[in-house]
Amino acid sequence: MTERVVLAYSGGLDTSVAIGWIAQETGAEVVAVAVDVGQGGEDMETIRQRALACGAVEAVVADARDEFAEQYCLPALQTNALYMERYPVVSALSRPLIVKHLVQAAKMHGADTVAHGCTGKGNDQVRFEVGIGALAPDLKVIAPVRDYAWTREKAIAWAEERNLPIDVNKRSPYSIDQNVWGRAVETGFLEDIWNAPIEDVYSYTQDPTEPRDADELVITFDQGVPVAIDGETVTVLQAIQELNRRAGAQGVGRIDIVEDRLVGIKSREVYEAPGAIALITAHQELENVTLERDLARFKRQVEQRWTELVYDGLWFSPLKDALDTFVADTQRHVSGEVRLVLHGGRAVVNGRRSEQSLYDFNLATYDEGDNFDQSLAKGFVQLWGLPSKIAAKRDLRGAK
Amino acid sequence: MTERVVLAYSGGLDTSVAIGWIAQETGAEVVAVAVDVGQGGEDMETIRQRALACGAVEAVVADARDEFAEQYCLPALQTNALYMERYPVVSALSRPLIVKHLVQAAKMHGADTVAHGCTGKGNDQVRFEVGIGALAPDLKVIAPVRDYAWTREKAIAWAEERNLPIDVNKRSPYSIDQNVWGRAVETGFLEDIWNAPIEDVYSYTQDPTEPRDADELVITFDQGVPVAIDGETVTVLQAIQELNRRAGAQGVGRIDIVEDRLVGIKSREVYEAPGAIALITAHQELENVTLERDLARFKRQVEQRWTELVYDGLWFSPLKDALDTFVADTQRHVSGEVRLVLHGGRAVVNGRRSEQSLYDFNLATYDEGDNFDQSLAKGFVQLWGLPSKIAAKRDLRGAK
Amino acid sequence: MTERVVLAYSGGLDTSVAIGWIAQETGAEVVAVAVDVGQGGEDMETIRQRALACGAVEAVVADARDEFAEQYCLPALQTNALYMERYPVVSALSRPLIVKHLVQAAKMHGADTVAHGCTGKGNDQVRFEVGIGALAPDLKVIAPVRDYAWTREKAIAWAEERNLPIDVNKRSPYSIDQNVWGRAVETGFLEDIWNAPIEDVYSYTQDPTEPRDADELVITFDQGVPVAIDGETVTVLQAIQELNRRAGAQGVGRIDIVEDRLVGIKSREVYEAPGAIALITAHQELENVTLERDLARFKRQVEQRWTELVYDGLWFSPLKDALDTFVADTQRHVSGEVRLVLHGGRAVVNGRRSEQSLYDFNLATYDEGDNFDQSLAKGFVQLWGLPSKIAAKRDLRGAK
Amino acid sequence: MTERVVLAYSGGLDTSVAIGWIAQETGAEVVAVAVDVGQGGEDMETIRQRALACGAVEAVVADARDEFAEQYCLPALQTNALYMERYPVVSALSRPLIVKHLVQAAKMHGADTVAHGCTGKGNDQVRFEVGIGALAPDLKVIAPVRDYAWTREKAIAWAEERNLPIDVNKRSPYSIDQNVWGRAVETGFLEDIWNAPIEDVYSYTQDPTEPRDADELVITFDQGVPVAIDGETVTVLQAIQELNRRAGAQGVGRIDIVEDRLVGIKSREVYEAPGAIALITAHQELENVTLERDLARFKRQVEQRWTELVYDGLWFSPLKDALDTFVADTQRHVSGEVRLVLHGGRAVVNGRRSEQSLYDFNLATYDEGDNFDQSLAKGFVQLWGLPSKIAAKRDLRGAK
Repeated sequence: MTERVVLAYSGGLDTSVAIGWIAQETGAEVVAVAVDVGQGGEDMETIRQRALACGAVEAVVADARDEFAEQYCLPALQTNALYMERYPVVSALSRPLIVKHLVQAAKMHGADTVAHGCTGKGNDQVRFEVGIGALAPDLKVIAPVRDYAWTREKAIAWAEERNLPIDVNKRSPYSIDQNVWGRAVETGFLEDIWNAPIEDVYSYTQDPTEPRDADELVITFDQGVPVAIDGETVTVLQAIQELNRRAGAQGVGRIDIVEDRLVGIKSREVYEAPGAIALITAHQELENVTLERDLARFKRQVEQRWTELVYDGLWFSPLKDALDTFVADTQRHVSGEVRLVLHGGRAVVNGRRSEQSLYDFNLATYDEGDNFDQSLAKGFVQLWGLPSKIAAKRDLRGAK
Repeated sequence: MTERVVLAYSGGLDTSVAIGWIAQETGAEVVAVAVDVGQGGEDMETIRQRALACGAVEAVVADARDEFAEQYCLPALQTNALYMERYPVVSALSRPLIVKHLVQAAKMHGADTVAHGCTGKGNDQVRFEVGIGALAPDLKVIAPVRDYAWTREKAIAWAEERNLPIDVNKRSPYSIDQNVWGRAVETGFLEDIWNAPIEDVYSYTQDPTEPRDADELVITFDQGVPVAIDGETVTVLQAIQELNRRAGAQGVGRIDIVEDRLVGIKSREVYEAPGAIALITAHQELENVTLERDLARFKRQVEQRWTELVYDGLWFSPLKDALDTFVADTQRHVSGEVRLVLHGGRAVVNGRRSEQSLYDFNLATYDEGDNFDQSLAKGFVQLWGLPSKIAAKRDLRGAK
Repeated sequence: MTERVVLAYSGGLDTSVAIGWIAQETGAEVVAVAVDVGQGGEDMETIRQRALACGAVEAVVADARDEFAEQYCLPALQTNALYMERYPVVSALSRPLIVKHLVQAAKMHGADTVAHGCTGKGNDQVRFEVGIGALAPDLKVIAPVRDYAWTREKAIAWAEERNLPIDVNKRSPYSIDQNVWGRAVETGFLEDIWNAPIEDVYSYTQDPTEPRDADELVITFDQGVPVAIDGETVTVLQAIQELNRRAGAQGVGRIDIVEDRLVGIKSREVYEAPGAIALITAHQELENVTLERDLARFKRQVEQRWTELVYDGLWFSPLKDALDTFVADTQRHVSGEVRLVLHGGRAVVNGRRSEQSLYDFNLATYDEGDNFDQSLAKGFVQLWGLPSKIAAKRDLRGAK
Repeated sequence: MTERVVLAYSGGLDTSVAIGWIAQETGAEVVAVAVDVGQGGEDMETIRQRALACGAVEAVVADARDEFAEQYCLPALQTNALYMERYPVVSALSRPLIVKHLVQAAKMHGADTVAHGCTGKGNDQVRFEVGIGALAPDLKVIAPVRDYAWTREKAIAWAEERNLPIDVNKRSPYSIDQNVWGRAVETGFLEDIWNAPIEDVYSYTQDPTEPRDADELVITFDQGVPVAIDGETVTVLQAIQELNRRAGAQGVGRIDIVEDRLVGIKSREVYEAPGAIALITAHQELENVTLERDLARFKRQVEQRWTELVYDGLWFSPLKDALDTFVADTQRHVSGEVRLVLHGGRAVVNGRRSEQSLYDFNLATYDEGDNFDQSLAKGFVQLWGLPSKIAAKRDLRGAK
C-alpha cells in the first residue's frame, strides 16, 4: 500500500505547492487537513476543493471553532495567559488543536507521517512537532520549508509550471496568522523596531484614536466561564466573537511588542486580540474579588509558567496538565458579573458583583457598620515585623 | 528631661489634634515631622507653623522629593512594581521614606517614641511600624487613632474646644493619599464595588474619553534610569513630574481595583498614577529589547515578590535588600530610547532603539540578510520535546 | 441552657487543670476531646476517665490513626514535605486533624467555644485557631495558657488544691509532641544551640552509631501510595508504623535544626521521624524515575510552598487545597518499587523499578542498543545557548 | 598561516587520538589544553608530554585548583547547589572553568576553533559549547566523538596503527569524571536501575557500613566562606580537600540517583562528594541561624534555579550572573562556627554559634528570661488567618 502523509493545509501558496512536492519527493499520497479555528477568510469547502485540485488524495476540513473556544481559549482565559504580560498566546493556542486533528486524520487515513509548512526560526515548528510527538510518538514529521529550504520564489515557479489554482500574485505584504482568539502580524517594515505600526496592519480592530461613544457591557462568569453578555446567554465561542466585535470596534486589544521566541531570538510582533483582552481584563478583576490572597499570589506564578509552557510548544506536557488541575480548582468560585467599559482602545472594569465575593463591606468600610476589630492589628504588626526587627538589631550590633 | 515623641505630621485635622492629645496623655513633648514627597497641597512652611500653633515643641519639614524619586520611585520603576499587576504601590513607597525621616528626627531631637495617625485596618500602620522596628528597634510606637479609637468627631470637638488653627469644615468626601508617584482615593460610595468612579474622584488625570490630540514623546533610559525626555536631560523627579503632567493630560494611569490588603481584607481602591504608568510601560518594553529571555522570565518572579514585600510593609527587610541587588544587576544594559504615544487614557510604545539591544535584525528577518541557520532547528525541536514524548509513550503504554 | 466549651485534651497536667479553670472562669460546661494520632503513651480510656474525674461534663476520645495516616501523612509524603528541607512537619499535620475533631465535637455537644492549651510563642496556637476559623468561623476560641498567663506552678498548685488525679511530679525535662509521623523535642539545655543532643532525648530511634546489621526492604507504591513492604500489603498507617520500627531500629530520621517559626523567632528543635524520612526518601527517588523533568522541577516549588503553608497553620486554606490538586495529579504515575537500605542512621535507595518508568535503557545506554540520535544534539545545543551567545556578543560590543 | 584548533585534552585515549585525527581532517595544528581541577591521577607534565607525543603543536597545562575552588566550588557551596536536591553539580562546575582556559588558549595561540571530546547524549557538550559561545561567540566548535561518530574501537585501532604512547588496554569498566568537588561514575551494570552499586565503584569514600569511630570537627565560615577547620586557617581548596579526606574516610557523600539530563533523557548516576556534602550541610545550618526567614525561603527558589542553570550549561548566562549577586548579598552575615559529626556515611550538625545569629535565646526560651510578649500573638493569629476565615465563610454560604 502506498504510504500516506497528512499535511497541515491552509489553502495558501506554500502548503498548496507542498502537496505536489511531497508526493513527488516521497512517493506518498498526501492527505490535506484544514481546520477552522475562526480565522475567517475563505470558505472551508473552497479550501478543500483546492487541496484536491492540487493533488491531495484526501482533503479533510474541520469546523473546530467551538472546540477551540472551549478547550483552548477558555483555559487561556482562566489562566489570564499573557506571554511577557502582554500577548494572549494566540497562535500558540491553535497549534495543539490543529495537531490533534492532524493526528486523528493520520490514524483515520493510515498515514505514518505528518507535514507542516513552518520555517525553522519560528515557534510554530516546535508547537507542531512537540505536539505530534506527544500525541503520536511514532509519527514521522517533515517540514519542507525548513528542511528543504523552500522559498516563496520556488513555490511560485512550481505553482505556475503546474498551473495550480492559486493566485500567486495575491500576496499580503504581511505575514499573518489569525484565529478567533486574535491575530498576529509580522512584516518587513516592522522588523525595524523603531518604526511604528500603521493602520493598514490592523484588521480586527478600529483605530482607537477616532472619537466615538463608549460601549458598556456586563459579562457574567460562572466558575471562570463567560456565560452571558448583558444578560444574554452565550457559548464561549459567542462570547469571544461578540467581544471581538464590540471591543474591536473600540480599538481594544492592539499589542506591539519585542518578544522572546523559544528558538532563542527576539522578534517584533504586532497583535490584535480585542475579545481576548476584554475577557481577560474582566476575568482578572472578578478573580480579585473572589480569590483568596495567597491563592491569587501563587496563581500568578502558575499563570506565568503555564503561559511560557504553551508559548514554548508544551501544551501536551505533563506539567501543563498538572497546572491545568490547579487552575481548574481556582475557578470554582469565580462567578459573578463584571461591568466593562470599552472605549478608545481601553477595556476598563468599573463595577463587579458576586455571590462568591470575598469583599466584605462591613470589614472594609470606614463608615458605620465597621466590624473589623482594630485592636487585633497591634499584635499582628509586631509579629509580622519581628523577623526584620531581629535582623535589624543584629545588623546594628555588627555596625558598631 | 521631659520625654519626647516624634509625630508623623500631615497638617490635617487628625495629626494636628494628636499633638495636644499625645502631650496630654503621655506628658511628653511632641516633635512634629512633615515630609514633602510631592503630595502638593499646602506650603510646607504653613504646615510647620500650624504644628507649632497646635503645641509642637519642634516642627521639622523636609523637602524629600528628589530623595523620594531617586531612592524609592526609581527602584519601583526598575522593578516594574505593580501590585496585583495593576497598582504601582504609591503609598507603600512613601511610608519607608517618611519612617527614615521620623527616625532621624527622633535621634536628633532626643525622642524615644514615634507616633503615627494610621488606623488599624489599613496597610500603612504596618509600613510605619515595621519600618521603625527595622531602622530603630528600640523606639516605641504609639498609634492614637488605632489604639485609642479616635474618631473624627472626637477630633473636631477637641480642635474646636482648644481653638486650634484648623478648618474642621474643610473635609474631602474622600480619603486621599498622594505623592509624586501617584494618588490613592478611597471613599464611601466606592465601597459599593458595583458603583463606578465619577470624574470628581480624580485630580492628577483628565477625563480620557474627551477628544484631544495625542501626545508623543521619547524617553531615554540609561541603565534603567530615565535621563531624558525628548532629548532634554531630566532628573528622576523631573521625569516623573513631566510625565504626570503630559500623561495626566491624556487621562493615563487611572486604576480601579479590588485589592488584597495585608491585614487580611479586600478593599476597593481608585488610583491615579500617570507618570508611574507611563514610565513603567516604557521601561518594560526597553527591557523586552535588552534583557535576555531567561533573565526576563525570572525577573518577573522577582518583581512580584519585591512588590508584595513593599506593599506588605517590608521595605527595610533582608529579602527586599537582596532582591534589590538582583534588580540592580539586571539594569546594566537597560539603556536606550522608547517612543511613547499618550492618548485616550493609554500609554503605548510604538518604537524602541538601543545600543544594548538583543534584537538582531539579521537573525529575525524573513527577508534578505537572514543569517539564522534553520538547519539547527530540527535537532533543537526534537530534544526540546523529548521529555514530553517519552512521557507520552509511557502514558500510551499504560492506556493499552 | 448552660454554655459549653470544647477543650483539646491531652491527659496531661495543663489541660487537666484547664477543665476546672475554664468551668470556673466562664461558667460553662467543659467537653474534653482527646484524639489518638498514634502518639502512644497512655490508654485513651484512661485519659477519658481522667477528664471526667477532673470535671468534664463529657469526654470524647477518637482513634484517628488511620484517618491521620491517610488524609494528613499521605499528602505530606506525596509532597515530600520537609520544612527547611529537613523537618517533615510532624506536629503541623496533627493539628488540623485535631481541629476537625474539636469542631465536630462542638457541633455534636452544642458548644460555641473551643479551648486549647498552646502558648503564645509557638506555631500550634496558629494551627489551632486558624483551623477552627476555617472550619467553623463562628466558634470562639480561648487559650488559657496564652491569654491568662498560666504557668506550670499555678497548674500544680491548682491540681494539688483540688486533689485532681494527676501525678504532678511526673515531668519530663523535655517538651514533647509526638504522633505516628514523628516526634518533636524541645528542652532547656538544647536552647543553647551549641549544645549537642544526648541519647536521652530520643525515643523513636536507636543510636545510629552502634554497630548493627543493615536492614534492606522493598517498598511498593501505587500512584504515590505505599501499598506493600517486602511484598506484603499494608495500609498507610501500617507502612508508617512498620518503617518507624525498622528505620527507627537503625537510627534513621534524627533531625537537629534551628528553625524559623511563624511567629517570627528562631527556635532549636530536635525531631525523630524514622518512618517519614524512610518513606519520603523512597518516594522521592520513585518520582525521579516516573516524573517528567519540567513537572519535577515545578513540583519542587509547589512542595516548598505547600510545606510552608502547612507549617504556618494554613492547612484549611484555598491555596493549600489548590496545591493538593496539583500534587494529586502528579502522583498518577508514581507507581513501582524502591529498594531501601536502612543502616547507621541512613535510609538509602539502591534500586528502583516501575512499569511507569520514564528511564529508557535504550536512550541512556552507552552500550549496544543505543537508539539516541546524537546528530540532533548539535542543533539543540546551538539554539539552547543562542540567547546567552547573543547577550555575550552585546556585552563584548559594549566592552570595546 | 596554518589554522589552529584548541583541544580540551584529558590525557586519555579519546582525546589523545583526537589530536592526530583533527590535524588530519582539518589540516589545522592542534593545541592541547589540560586543566588540573583536582581530578588527581596522572601528573600534569606527563599529560603534557603525551599530547606533544601525539602530535600537538603546543600543549598547555594549567593548575587551576585554587581558581576552581574559589570561583566555581565556592559559589556552589554558598548556593547549597544540589541538583534534584541530591547532586552537587560536580562536572557542571568544572566545565565552565575548562572553557575559560580553552578560550584563553585560543586567543594566545591564535586558534579559531575549539574541540571537545563529549558525546551527543550528555550534558557536557552543552556546557562546553554554550560556554564557548558565551565567552567567545566567534570561535567555532568541533566535537569529533559526537559529530563524526567516533567509537572506542576506532580510537584503539587508530592509536595502535600510529603507535601512540597510550595504554589502550588500561580501561576502567566505568565512565568517570572527577575533580576536587566530587566524582561521577556511570557504568554498564548500573544502567539497570534495579542493580545496587558495588564497593568497587567508589574511590573518594570508604564503606560507610564498616564500624569506625566518629570524627568531629568545627568549621568556621566568614561571610559564607569556609576559612578554618578546627581553628586552623584554610583556603577554600584546602577546606574541600581536608573534608574530602575526613568525610570520605567516614563514607560521607555517596549519591545514587536517576537524574534528568538536559538533553531530555533520564540517566542513572553514582556520585561521591564527601567534602561538598559536608560543607553544604554545615553551611545550610549556619544559614538557618543567620538568615532571616523570608530571605531563606526565597533563597531556596534561587538555589533551585541557579543549580538548574549551572547543570543545564548556562554558567555564563545573564540570569546566572544576576542570581550570583543575590546569593552574594545573602552571605554577608553567614559567619560563625558549625560543629559537624562525620560517621557512618552521615555528616550531622550538632552545634552552631555565630556573632551574626538571629537566634535569640531570650525570645525562644520557655524558661526564665523569656521576653517574648505573648499578648501580641492573639491579634497576629486572628489577622493571619483572616483571609482563610473569610473564604471559609463564603464556602459555607455556598454550601447551604
